[in-house]
Amino acid sequence: MISTSLMAQKSDEDQLKEIYKQSLLNGKSYEWLDYLSNQIGGRLSGSLNAERAVRYTKQELEALGLDRVWLQPVMVPKWTRGVKEYAYVESEPGKTTSVNICALGGSVATPDGGLKTEMVEVKGLEDLKALGESKIKGKIVFFNRPMQADLISTFAAYGGCVDQRYSGAAEAVKYGAVGVIVRSMNLRLDDYPHTGSMGYGELPVDQRIPAAAISTNDAEMLSTMLALDPGLKFYFSQKCRVFPDVESYNVIGEIKGSTYPNEIITVGGHLDSWDLGDGSHDDGAGCVQSMEVLRLLKESGYTPKRTIRVVLFMNEENGLRGGNKYAEVAKEKGENHVFALESDAGGFTPRGFSFDSDAKNYERILAWKPLFEPYLIHLFEKGGSGADIGPLKGDGTVLAGLRPDSQRYFDHHHAENDTFEHVNKRELELGAATMTSLIYLIDKYGIVQGAKIKG
Amino acid sequence: MISTSLMAQKSDEDQLKEIYKQSLLNGKSYEWLDYLSNQIGGRLSGSLNAERAVRYTKQELEALGLDRVWLQPVMVPKWTRGVKEYAYVESEPGKTTSVNICALGGSVATPDGGLKTEMVEVKGLEDLKALGESKIKGKIVFFNRPMQADLISTFAAYGGCVDQRYSGAAEAVKYGAVGVIVRSMNLRLDDYPHTGSMGYGELPVDQRIPAAAISTNDAEMLSTMLALDPGLKFYFSQKCRVFPDVESYNVIGEIKGSTYPNEIITVGGHLDSWDLGDGSHDDGAGCVQSMEVLRLLKESGYTPKRTIRVVLFMNEENGLRGGNKYAEVAKEKGENHVFALESDAGGFTPRGFSFDSDAKNYERILAWKPLFEPYLIHLFEKGGSGADIGPLKGDGTVLAGLRPDSQRYFDHHHAENDTFEHVNKRELELGAATMTSLIYLIDKYGIVQGAKIKG
Repeated sequence: MISTSLMAQKSDEDQLKEIYKQSLLNGKSYEWLDYLSNQIGGRLSGSLNAERAVRYTKQELEALGLDRVWLQPVMVPKWTRGVKEYAYVESEPGKTTSVNICALGGSVATPDGGLKTEMVEVKGLEDLKALGESKIKGKIVFFNRPMQADLISTFAAYGGCVDQRYSGAAEAVKYGAVGVIVRSMNLRLDDYPHTGSMGYGELPVDQRIPAAAISTNDAEMLSTMLALDPGLKFYFSQKCRVFPDVESYNVIGEIKGSTYPNEIITVGGHLDSWDLGDGSHDDGAGCVQSMEVLRLLKESGYTPKRTIRVVLFMNEENGLRGGNKYAEVAKEKGENHVFALESDAGGFTPRGFSFDSDAKNYERILAWKPLFEPYLIHLFEKGGSGADIGPLKGDGTVLAGLRPDSQRYFDHHHAENDTFEHVNKRELELGAATMTSLIYLIDKYGIVQGAKIKG
Repeated sequence: MISTSLMAQKSDEDQLKEIYKQSLLNGKSYEWLDYLSNQIGGRLSGSLNAERAVRYTKQELEALGLDRVWLQPVMVPKWTRGVKEYAYVESEPGKTTSVNICALGGSVATPDGGLKTEMVEVKGLEDLKALGESKIKGKIVFFNRPMQADLISTFAAYGGCVDQRYSGAAEAVKYGAVGVIVRSMNLRLDDYPHTGSMGYGELPVDQRIPAAAISTNDAEMLSTMLALDPGLKFYFSQKCRVFPDVESYNVIGEIKGSTYPNEIITVGGHLDSWDLGDGSHDDGAGCVQSMEVLRLLKESGYTPKRTIRVVLFMNEENGLRGGNKYAEVAKEKGENHVFALESDAGGFTPRGFSFDSDAKNYERILAWKPLFEPYLIHLFEKGGSGADIGPLKGDGTVLAGLRPDSQRYFDHHHAENDTFEHVNKRELELGAATMTSLIYLIDKYGIVQGAKIKG
């Protein structure tokens, strides 16, 4: 550790160097993630594991000696998968082929004993109307548009497909469909089904139809089988249930600003995850990196001028209740949120940031690019930030999202193989250091609000 | 496929877009790598697998319909590991703890029945002199300086440690050491020993001492045990042998230049690999990417002005005979090599290139940076290129190396876990497209030689 008086003399170059060094040599993020992933595991909102994760991260933040650590209550939905889903293709009675599926988050169960009927394949929501009720009624609709592999950003490819998952059931039911099977949002061909949220809109509970994701390998096979035998039957059984909302928490810790304590800088990720894997990339990584930001600032002896707050949001995956609650409370209290940064794109090698910012602040931030070049951080794009901090938008808050390399993200996203061994320690630590560096610069130089800068 | 007449009108932006699209949608690199890794496997020079790899890649290049495909004979060393190495720590007679080691490439065997004696730990070659013969004679020297984790480039960290592996035995024997154990060149703590080349210099064969790498986890354990009990004994047994040199081949294919056939642009990787894994990252990836460069140029209907040559070099790992032979033959024939690009840093997300170039050509290349930005290729640094193309240096040849993200490379380098499943298809394909794009631009705009540009 270096004394505060020495630190005060550091150039920005030296401060960033120290931040990266400490993250890579003495970082805590990987150890925290190991615990979250391997000792706790998948942390779906409303589950016991989610509550264990709240308790664990609160303890760890308290151990850092921050100025204040607290839990912010929030009511969250509670959906459970129940016993493992089961599905097969039946080409003639008794001749069956198993396929890998998982219920989509929020889906209803199949009828007792499962659902077996004919199937119709489409490439997207827009195909439903062309087919019409005559071809869809009484059948299962199979949404099979793959992610577009020639897009460089896999998030763009995800954005171009995920309407099938989110709205497939709500749209198909209008034409009399009795169930929905959706190709997993995965660019790889493999055997993992990928879950994720779906919604029924205003559809009454008794009209809802079950929806599941199928692995990409099985989607390919199923499509081939359907081409050969359009009359084949598809069977699936899932036992998911919705329970009444339960109370959970955002976990929050802060270092009080020495000069402008009322200017708040938030850094966070979401503590909940889907239930299939252990949520290491989505978003255990973002949580431990955000915790590490405060630890690195503290350990390096830097005294923030502004209040730096870590927020581990609950319920990003199937409700965004934590993000909404945090913004709501901030508004009630009249807090001045000058900047918020989210890490929710995996624990991969950091490439840069995306900024949701006015032109003036974006320009100021761009001037820091050379400071990041030694760390191969090149991407400073305008765009979105993160779902959890989105509700803070407005009133001059500058929002940002960490942008790690996206190529491998959807191999793991929402699937059984989103697990700790797929996170590289150095990549995680480089992400934490990159976030800390940005927060340091924002704290030191401030954000322009209206005409004034506090710097 | 797009017709040649249409292609001729393409802007550079459109040509690059087409290259990336084809690599990501219809690429062959991943399929080739699957075969090289899973159907052939580790391909140490002089082994049967190396010859199978020569035959396979020649066939595949022939199937591409290039203008010419041939084998360039080269004599290579033949070193074999023999039966698996065996090692333990003995804290008292009969009380033993197994550790994971592997012989370093080129090492001699231990005496029959193995070698068991006391051990002395050092942090590098420079410690030997200080200890002197009195503390070293008759013992095994344990080189245990770890790679420096706070360097952003893991290759820099490797460069700072690898002298222990390469020269440890040759230096320790001067003080009477009877064997050498070297901490694996790996930033992770895990159980894999990492092999790699070592040399004895001019030391006569009968004075050579055996050298092995130990896994990082076991290096840590061993260091702790030695601190507690400096008198403990270390046992290891390895059966490696050197055979007379054998004939092998560089595999070469080319598209003849339409306008300047005598200007040669070379792109390559090395076909040999260490024997422990299947050599997917080192350097199966570089081979299939280089093959893909010619395939993508051909498939896209682009007609190169210059001769584009793919070279799969033999024996990079323990001799560089292939690289030296290629340059030697080029010189004999008076060939004009204007540019050479090597991919030998793993099949990870490409970040850019390193150029070994005069200032004028480097400046010309830098002007293409904006073309690469949509593909997140930002790094255009001056520096080294690749070992195999190094011997081409001089006479105005501009050299370049692909620079993929380096964070995970040394987790796998020269170890049992350098295997196909650790290569991401998209990352590999993005690398191939990035290389193809550079070769396209070099071909189109030429290289300044002396005062003239042919463009």
